[in-house]
Amino acid sequence: MLHLINVYLVWSQILPAAAWLRLGNYLRETQLLGSIQSTLYWDQNTGMPSGGASWRGEQLALLARELHLRQSSEQYVELINAAEAEFELEKQSGDLSAEIQLDKFRNLALLQQDFQRHQRLETSLVCELAQAKAEGYSRWQEAKTLNKFSLFSPALKRLLALRKQQAQQLSEPRTCWETLAQPFEPDVTLSRIEELFSPLRQRLPELLERVRHWKRIPIKKDWDLDAGAQQKLSRQLLAEWGQDIGVSSVASSPHPFSITLGPSDFRLTTRIVQGQPLSSFFATAHEWGHSLYEQGLPSESHQWFAWPLGHATSMGLHESQSLFWENRVARSKSFADRWWHRFADAGAPVASSCDLWRLMNPLIPGLNRVEADELSYGLHIMIRTEIEIELLERDLEVDAIPEEWNKRYKELLGLTPINDSEGCLQDVHWSEGLFGYFPSYLLGHLISAQLSEAMTKDLVLNGVDSIEPIDHLIASGSEATLLEWLRSHVHCYGRSLNSEQLVEKVSGKKLSSFPFLAYLEEKIDHLERSS
Amino acid sequence: MLHLINVYLVWSQILPAAAWLRLGNYLRETQLLGSIQSTLYWDQNTGMPSGGASWRGEQLALLARELHLRQSSEQYVELINAAEAEFELEKQSGDLSAEIQLDKFRNLALLQQDFQRHQRLETSLVCELAQAKAEGYSRWQEAKTLNKFSLFSPALKRLLALRKQQAQQLSEPRTCWETLAQPFEPDVTLSRIEELFSPLRQRLPELLERVRHWKRIPIKKDWDLDAGAQQKLSRQLLAEWGQDIGVSSVASSPHPFSITLGPSDFRLTTRIVQGQPLSSFFATAHEWGHSLYEQGLPSESHQWFAWPLGHATSMGLHESQSLFWENRVARSKSFADRWWHRFADAGAPVASSCDLWRLMNPLIPGLNRVEADELSYGLHIMIRTEIEIELLERDLEVDAIPEEWNKRYKELLGLTPINDSEGCLQDVHWSEGLFGYFPSYLLGHLISAQLSEAMTKDLVLNGVDSIEPIDHLIASGSEATLLEWLRSHVHCYGRSLNSEQLVEKVSGKKLSSFPFLAYLEEKIDHLERSS
Repeated sequence: MLHLINVYLVWSQILPAAAWLRLGNYLRETQLLGSIQSTLYWDQNTGMPSGGASWRGEQLALLARELHLRQSSEQYVELINAAEAEFELEKQSGDLSAEIQLDKFRNLALLQQDFQRHQRLETSLVCELAQAKAEGYSRWQEAKTLNKFSLFSPALKRLLALRKQQAQQLSEPRTCWETLAQPFEPDVTLSRIEELFSPLRQRLPELLERVRHWKRIPIKKDWDLDAGAQQKLSRQLLAEWGQDIGVSSVASSPHPFSITLGPSDFRLTTRIVQGQPLSSFFATAHEWGHSLYEQGLPSESHQWFAWPLGHATSMGLHESQSLFWENRVARSKSFADRWWHRFADAGAPVASSCDLWRLMNPLIPGLNRVEADELSYGLHIMIRTEIEIELLERDLEVDAIPEEWNKRYKELLGLTPINDSEGCLQDVHWSEGLFGYFPSYLLGHLISAQLSEAMTKDLVLNGVDSIEPIDHLIASGSEATLLEWLRSHVHCYGRSLNSEQLVEKVSGKKLSSFPFLAYLEEKIDHLERSS
Repeated sequence: MLHLINVYLVWSQILPAAAWLRLGNYLRETQLLGSIQSTLYWDQNTGMPSGGASWRGEQLALLARELHLRQSSEQYVELINAAEAEFELEKQSGDLSAEIQLDKFRNLALLQQDFQRHQRLETSLVCELAQAKAEGYSRWQEAKTLNKFSLFSPALKRLLALRKQQAQQLSEPRTCWETLAQPFEPDVTLSRIEELFSPLRQRLPELLERVRHWKRIPIKKDWDLDAGAQQKLSRQLLAEWGQDIGVSSVASSPHPFSITLGPSDFRLTTRIVQGQPLSSFFATAHEWGHSLYEQGLPSESHQWFAWPLGHATSMGLHESQSLFWENRVARSKSFADRWWHRFADAGAPVASSCDLWRLMNPLIPGLNRVEADELSYGLHIMIRTEIEIELLERDLEVDAIPEEWNKRYKELLGLTPINDSEGCLQDVHWSEGLFGYFPSYLLGHLISAQLSEAMTKDLVLNGVDSIEPIDHLIASGSEATLLEWLRSHVHCYGRSLNSEQLVEKVSGKKLSSFPFLAYLEEKIDHLERSS
């Protein structure tokens, strides 16, 4: 990419732009390359035939190498240093408002931190990782299809070895797992995870035990909705939740995801799962929650979306936004009140709002994380988190994963997968070498619950005439008001805070598991009463 | 991209690879970048929301700049020169077989030619063109939707101005239009186009006049097939014609196209057009013909698909392959014999093979090029070719296009578009600044007819027991034999010949319009007899 820098230096001599602007131009080109990478990833999952995998891996490796060189180049650090020097002069001159000063400070600090991280990695490792990720993804797909963990394990071993090397090269004052988890959850530690998760590890199995003995109203078994009806319901949902098809589109992929490909280009995927008639609908709600968050990030105020403050706070915070829409909104009683007729028309065996509500909240543990409900979801995450910590910190062998997985499922959920495809091969993450990512999902539940408490108080104070203002708004189809609140209280921060700081700022309290447990218990009570 | 060259130079010092191999590595990386560009283009047409256009334009501009710098760099020419020097030594040593010697010679000559072309273009022009193409595409879509040529004309003016600059910078001993047409049809000239097209300009309207007076058996008007049925027929067609879903996939786009994204990654698009029940089926046949050609190019023998000899001979030759499958095969009587039951089952108003055959060959002129049949297709092309030659060579004004278009349609086809969306805005090509491309379509008809003649002789000589061996094979579902013939007589040449040389080599005769006219007249006779 050196020639780009050269071209740019020539420009910068012609136009005497401020150092800040020059840095912004550089970041913009980095972001262009990064978003090209994302587009290749999107295509890999939505349109590419399997034969394209190896060439795609080379394309991604090439871009990864360019991006890495660009993000750790001398020219780049000089641009950051120049912007810092300029910033010092601006501060001294007193021309900056306190707010702009803080934003600039935080942007520069994050750029320095990210730069240090990139610079510490050897280029060869970055290339190897990119190739190993493409290879891992391809092997995982094969292994999952053929239900043969051994087809995937060599690729996973290579990814683990490379990630350990990565943590070593980064040499942060953290453990290996903590180091790898930083990009997903800045400042996370093993002890904080332990502190947040241990009340759940105790209480969730108890709650599961409580509902296990419910006398459930029998529902017609093995019902399904045809693909067309499911797609229609999802389209209706997106339309009601304000989708602008000019800036967002939907496709199919084996694992639903949401991705941003440009400042006005938001994509999401879903999938139809046979025998899981609500799966596609909730995947749509979930991924749209992610997308709404990305759409709400402060891109306007910071030149395009290339600056750190324009990026997501953390994956946990990201997940809190998808879970808010999926669980707090779409799985609520008031949502069922509005929607049950449409589901009935589509062919669902429901004759009342309560029927649909119970279908949406079975509270029965299963083996699949993505299909899990709020009550058992956390247990799926704890199992993955514990296993990956063991792999990275305590030398658990890759070949022991299936056994370890099944043992923990038996213990926490009382279930055993029939095979590895529905067991330890079910998720894509490890196939791409993502370790330290899984806890974000559970942190998302905790954050969503704590933010919902704050939202409730705030909406009441601001005149929404109900003691349950969130449900009141859902019942009247006014989800736009919820989105507005999230935009102004949560989405607007980007990386100016970490997720714990953000939660404390919004809720006035340190993040804990208790709002989530309280929310769950209340929902269980309500479901019990309505049976 | 300089650092890539540097990394590569370091490798080359460690591994003392031959200059030929070093050049191959460089070409491979160029091809990786080029195929990333193609992937962005694919996505732009199949999945991108309209809001993504501007950022996509910047991504494409960035890649275009990189590719241009890469293809015109000092390092690159040094690699070519080193490979040439090495080649001279090899020739003197007598170690090379005559065949390898010829291949190497041709590869190097084409690389030098392409290099000279890239080097002559200013980087700023390359960037401006990339942006203008993205902008043009976006404006064209808007103008077509709103049926307002004036929304598109400023973008088209800019593209024309930039293309004229391009021809000037290339300063070849050719006219502007000829220069721009070279990448599509190497060695094409205005006078040769005139020579090939003028018999058609005279004879096609006469033939059209002849069939205009046919007494046609009335068909239920305004029939259509639902989208699902059309998709099913297209899937059946691809399955019968040997699609391997491991290396190819299908999507929807406003304008059907075929594109290669990697050595084992072939894509095609189609679309459902309301009221045009056969459109999607024939678009599939057509694009699959393109794809089969790309799949048959000599990639194996020339290190991946990065060398010139692994690329298509010309767009005219490319088109001959799509037209062979679409028209010579799928619109033949023997194909209708095999398929009419399936169309009847899908809901088409056909009670016999002849019914379907006539539906597939209406021989009624229309306003839409893509939907045109073989008889009038050439006239659509002549109109576009004449207009773009006027625009580039004779100062026709952009704003005069709609009038000029409509005048020529009246004169040659006896029809007038109701609006510009079905008139001069119907095709995508000019929106991306593709001038000199349109004649390829008509050359494709001529080449396909002349190659079919040669194929017929050859198959008879090789023991296919029929005087109409192509139809005999279609009737028995043995299209694989036709493909084999094309693979070994046509696909295998890549850029080792130009299209006229290839046709002469295969058919023993200089390319002319007469095999195509003879084919048309015979088909018209046959259709007339069967009415």
